[in-house]
Amino acid sequence: MNTGEDRSGTGAGAERPELSCPVPLPPGDRIQLGHGGGGRLTAALIRDHLLPAFGDPELARLADAATLEVPGGRLAFTTDAFVVQPIVFPGGDIGSLAVYGTVNDLAMMGARPLALAVALILEEGLELGTFDRVVASMATAARRAGVRLVAGDTKVVERGAADGCYVTTTGIGVVPPGVEVGPERGRPGDAVLCSGPIGVHGVAVMSRRAGIGFDTDLHSDAAPLHDLVAAGLAAGGVHALRDPTRGGLAAACNELAQASGVSIVLREDALDVPGPVAAACEMLGLDPLHVAGEGICVALVAPEDADRVLAAWRAHPSGRRAARIGEVRAGPPAVWLRTGLGVHRPVQVPTGEALPRIC
Amino acid sequence: MNTGEDRSGTGAGAERPELSCPVPLPPGDRIQLGHGGGGRLTAALIRDHLLPAFGDPELARLADAATLEVPGGRLAFTTDAFVVQPIVFPGGDIGSLAVYGTVNDLAMMGARPLALAVALILEEGLELGTFDRVVASMATAARRAGVRLVAGDTKVVERGAADGCYVTTTGIGVVPPGVEVGPERGRPGDAVLCSGPIGVHGVAVMSRRAGIGFDTDLHSDAAPLHDLVAAGLAAGGVHALRDPTRGGLAAACNELAQASGVSIVLREDALDVPGPVAAACEMLGLDPLHVAGEGICVALVAPEDADRVLAAWRAHPSGRRAARIGEVRAGPPAVWLRTGLGVHRPVQVPTGEALPRIC
Repeated sequence: MNTGEDRSGTGAGAERPELSCPVPLPPGDRIQLGHGGGGRLTAALIRDHLLPAFGDPELARLADAATLEVPGGRLAFTTDAFVVQPIVFPGGDIGSLAVYGTVNDLAMMGARPLALAVALILEEGLELGTFDRVVASMATAARRAGVRLVAGDTKVVERGAADGCYVTTTGIGVVPPGVEVGPERGRPGDAVLCSGPIGVHGVAVMSRRAGIGFDTDLHSDAAPLHDLVAAGLAAGGVHALRDPTRGGLAAACNELAQASGVSIVLREDALDVPGPVAAACEMLGLDPLHVAGEGICVALVAPEDADRVLAAWRAHPSGRRAARIGEVRAGPPAVWLRTGLGVHRPVQVPTGEALPRIC
Repeated sequence: MNTGEDRSGTGAGAERPELSCPVPLPPGDRIQLGHGGGGRLTAALIRDHLLPAFGDPELARLADAATLEVPGGRLAFTTDAFVVQPIVFPGGDIGSLAVYGTVNDLAMMGARPLALAVALILEEGLELGTFDRVVASMATAARRAGVRLVAGDTKVVERGAADGCYVTTTGIGVVPPGVEVGPERGRPGDAVLCSGPIGVHGVAVMSRRAGIGFDTDLHSDAAPLHDLVAAGLAAGGVHALRDPTRGGLAAACNELAQASGVSIVLREDALDVPGPVAAACEMLGLDPLHVAGEGICVALVAPEDADRVLAAWRAHPSGRRAARIGEVRAGPPAVWLRTGLGVHRPVQVPTGEALPRIC
């Protein structure tokens, strides 16, 4: 093949085409439909706003998929769509929440987070400043969690067809050999541990929600938990883990009870419900057990190991207020709360309407 | 520990709590906000609509993350948000499109697809019938592509805050040892192959779009390409692959040219533009090179292997109309179209506004 000849043919009589490198973002500081069209505006958004923030060489390769070397063995794989409203709230925003939420879902299977993929659905008209804030926050959260952000996708929908932005994060992690945790592994006799105060994220978000805003000093507790989880796993017999996000402690414990086929009894006096959470729940008619946290987890732990796991958690910055909050019993799947009067009341899963779009 | 004693204490004086198993979906055939709240309605949606359709035991485990055994080596990892409008179109819907789109992104790195995670953002009021159709279509597409659907998440936003539903699919795949493809691996002298006719998906979707609908017999070409890709890789020196989705053949070739630092010359007379695609583009003022396909790919292939790869593709049901459409030259990154008159005109990347929400 004679490329020299063909080259000269190409150039003859034709202007050199405009290089196909992205054009700068046009004047204006808002997301446009074209930013999602896969053409030059998309390329500019990626080049000027996403790659500088995320800075991962595999992402910068802009291949159809990232490639990663992994050891053989068990991978954990999880996805979460985040539609929290408002997208910026005390203590975080949809970007940091998405990263920590997905890192924590990996951690709940005992996995060490390895990499994240991020899919953004942006609303036409979203301020670029807000977009940049969310992206920067995502990058900071990923660094804090020690996880690479290697793949992404960005789409734009018309004004009114989304609510600012939605973020879907998907994570892969490595389950270290020998780690065996899962929601179905709880056993009668296990201690129930909780790594911190409940309901903080949900109340922080609701405090800024249009229509029901109120004053509070609370900031979202969203934080990565994989280190805390690893410390607990190293300490002993952790059987099952769950982070009480949507649906709160009530949903998390009921899901564990269902999966393990056991009954869980929580002690009311052991629950750490911060004053502002209790006050907000009183005002809004909510049960604090139904309100999401994003920086805490619940563990079902062999009773002989519970104190060691608790000590390991308390030595971790995210687990200083960890406590033993109940125990696992044989019996049909259910959750009970033992009140200060010694009465056991059932802890129901919320139906789901009361607290939409908290994550 | 005496669980027997504690059990009897639990039961004393308290009604057995309602089992925390999901309640049936309430009357009505539409998605409600509560279906996304993480409580009983969410559980019912998962139990009655998602698990039966997807039927994967790892998904049914309902853990925070799926776990998968993988061989050591290179994984491919990719995510895509799908916001196609309308969500049902000739030849498919957002569900099948999402599965094939992600499978194909893995295939473009030479990977064998392993597993998918699916995140759904549903609009309050979405008909359950439509939801079920999308879910069933996703399940069928996953079976066709031989990929497991092991993880998921479902959120619901208020009426008006989404457009029916958005689907984000994330895939992991295994890159077989020895496979080395990537957008930066094109070399001067490579042949440019295209596996089928261009622009079909985009025109099929636009034909049903509110405001610009028109009659056409075209059905979306969305299809999984990993087998076709594997056949091509087995045949010889495939250096780079790209599927011309958003932005069409123009964007795919420009991205390959940029990444590889080469010039690409396409031959107009070799391009397979079906009559209905040409007619629709004429009517809408679009360039067929800017219109998405979802069941075709472009390859840059060592010239000595091009005929073998082409033969392998043509032997595959998705590649019967595969053709050599151009070649790679040394030179600054750019794409040219050599017309029937022998003139070379530059092939620009579209800006992106003309064809929003095509995938």
